[in-house]
Amino acid sequence: MSPLLPSDPPMAWLDAVKWSADGLVPAIAQDAASGRVLMQAWMDRDALARTAATGEAHYWSRSRGRQWRKGESSGHVQKVREMRLDCDGDAVLLVVEQVGGISCHTGREHCFFRRLEDGRWVDVEPVLKDPRTIYGDD
Amino acid sequence: MSPLLPSDPPMAWLDAVKWSADGLVPAIAQDAASGRVLMQAWMDRDALARTAATGEAHYWSRSRGRQWRKGESSGHVQKVREMRLDCDGDAVLLVVEQVGGISCHTGREHCFFRRLEDGRWVDVEPVLKDPRTIYGDD
Repeated sequence: MSPLLPSDPPMAWLDAVKWSADGLVPAIAQDAASGRVLMQAWMDRDALARTAATGEAHYWSRSRGRQWRKGESSGHVQKVREMRLDCDGDAVLLVVEQVGGISCHTGREHCFFRRLEDGRWVDVEPVLKDPRTIYGDD
Repeated sequence: MSPLLPSDPPMAWLDAVKWSADGLVPAIAQDAASGRVLMQAWMDRDALARTAATGEAHYWSRSRGRQWRKGESSGHVQKVREMRLDCDGDAVLLVVEQVGGISCHTGREHCFFRRLEDGRWVDVEPVLKDPRTIYGDD
């Protein structure tokens, strides 16, 4: 059982979130050790509840139309150290331990690897692991 | 002129952003010094362009239905040190210098001041300045 929830969880904390019209809330994952912003994704109510219950980040994939547990294919699980809600209740921040040190599906440490320089987005972070070796060739 | 843009800016970098159906993209502001995630807000295309052109964070307020320059009322301007785009092009990260050390309209350093503890959101950050003294009583 996660220390983030009592043994018989009331759901009032889930009602405090201002869900969008399509039932989602933006969620930001930040690395607990480096402070780096790893990624921004989306959660539905069940993904947020599961994240708190299991201590592992779950998100809602808008492109695939289903919930996913971060790392379910790659092994790059996010162990949640803290969950935070913002002043307006419409954004969630996860402070996580990023297993494997890679959060991006491109094999980079994090997803925000393009920096605006002289009016162009420039890749400024190295690929740490070939995505084909993370996910296989299929 | 901001160093983030050339003197005669091409707009291809704005086209690289995957705008939502309502023309917005989530934007995360992170403090350049502390690494703290300050807030999550939204930008329309013009807000993102102005942010790059002026070096000060501009957002789109969904509740007020208008663009706003962060700090226009409070003086708590965000000076943008870096702008980043994520792998999917659907989230923006601003690394900022937060003038006044307060980014939240509640007078706290940042907006993510509620932490999930034992199934409840608990305020864990101090109010640094009374919002009435920031915005006036009106």
